[in-house]
Amino acid sequence: MKMKHATKYLEFCTKSRREFINITSEVEKAVRDSGIKEGICLVNAMHITSSVFINDEEPGLKRDFMSWLDKVAPEDSGYLHHQTGEDNADAHLKRTVMGREVVIAVTGGKLDFGPWEQVFYGDFDGQRRKRVLVKVIGE
Amino acid sequence: MKMKHATKYLEFCTKSRREFINITSEVEKAVRDSGIKEGICLVNAMHITSSVFINDEEPGLKRDFMSWLDKVAPEDSGYLHHQTGEDNADAHLKRTVMGREVVIAVTGGKLDFGPWEQVFYGDFDGQRRKRVLVKVIGE
Amino acid sequence: MKMKHATKYLEFCTKSRREFINITSEVEKAVRDSGIKEGICLVNAMHITSSVFINDEEPGLKRDFMSWLDKVAPEDSGYLHHQTGEDNADAHLKRTVMGREVVIAVTGGKLDFGPWEQVFYGDFDGQRRKRVLVKVIGE
Repeated sequence: MKMKHATKYLEFCTKSRREFINITSEVEKAVRDSGIKEGICLVNAMHITSSVFINDEEPGLKRDFMSWLDKVAPEDSGYLHHQTGEDNADAHLKRTVMGREVVIAVTGGKLDFGPWEQVFYGDFDGQRRKRVLVKVIGE
Repeated sequence: MKMKHATKYLEFCTKSRREFINITSEVEKAVRDSGIKEGICLVNAMHITSSVFINDEEPGLKRDFMSWLDKVAPEDSGYLHHQTGEDNADAHLKRTVMGREVVIAVTGGKLDFGPWEQVFYGDFDGQRRKRVLVKVIGE
Repeated sequence: MKMKHATKYLEFCTKSRREFINITSEVEKAVRDSGIKEGICLVNAMHITSSVFINDEEPGLKRDFMSWLDKVAPEDSGYLHHQTGEDNADAHLKRTVMGREVVIAVTGGKLDFGPWEQVFYGDFDGQRRKRVLVKVIGE
């Protein structure tokens, strides 16, 4: 069988500085449009203060994630990165905790997910246009 | 050369709520059974309170990981997620720290590992059946 | 189109125990040498106290990352792992936070990166030879 590939860029501009957006249906559409039945799907943030991750679509839990990230990687005026004029060092750290990318199996033309898996885009320094890359390879 | 693919689901039911299981030999077998010589192998938890990660098979270190996770992402009655009746918010956070998936190179028909790399399944809300997906693509 | 693959091992020996090395150009070269135009590129540490991750080439931020890791996963004499004679349990934890691997899309023969994405090798128990694997598959 021949190898196929498809590349798609999703654009987001969050309303708040920190926000999680469920992008499962966009990723599903990219896989469907690719025509690929068996392979893998890479979904990654193209910006270094943003994440793509998989977890649960539950509003309370999403707020728990945000509060927890603020404890693990707090805002602080003392970061050396801020001497460059930036104010978003904590966003770099938060994105590191949540991850840059996910790799998802494609089986029978669909994302091969467990019962609760949902794909999220997370921005920790948002309110501007950012991109997520979806690359599907397989056959 | 033609692209090949193989998909396998591993099932686990941990004895304790939190447990690490070394799954290296199961992943090696899935690669061997696939007949794929060059490519990549995705191994991911299909549940959002479980992890797949790579580290060292050393009992002390595995206990260090568990203690550390309890500090970084502690059990707490105050999580908003618990208002839904759940009690496992910390398990979602712990799994995030440890990661959902690993992607391993397959070279010469084998997992292309460094000297100490071992694949683990980690469950943080276990004692029930959960699945791990192994997807191998290549040729 | 036919599937191609390429495998390359990069070697590093850091000057300090903890160090970040920008390896973007080495990874770019591996992709160029592979002749692969569309696919994915896996870059992973082959050692369990080292990381490969993507972030920003900014010296202050890199020092912020190191200080932050020392808070999240501190050096401590009390780790059980140290009863084996090792002294690097914190390095295992730090590598877990930063991640073992990245998967990068290859589009038009190049790493398909956003504006600030750079690939780093991070060693948390360095000053000895360690390897990073680069595997490119695609066509």
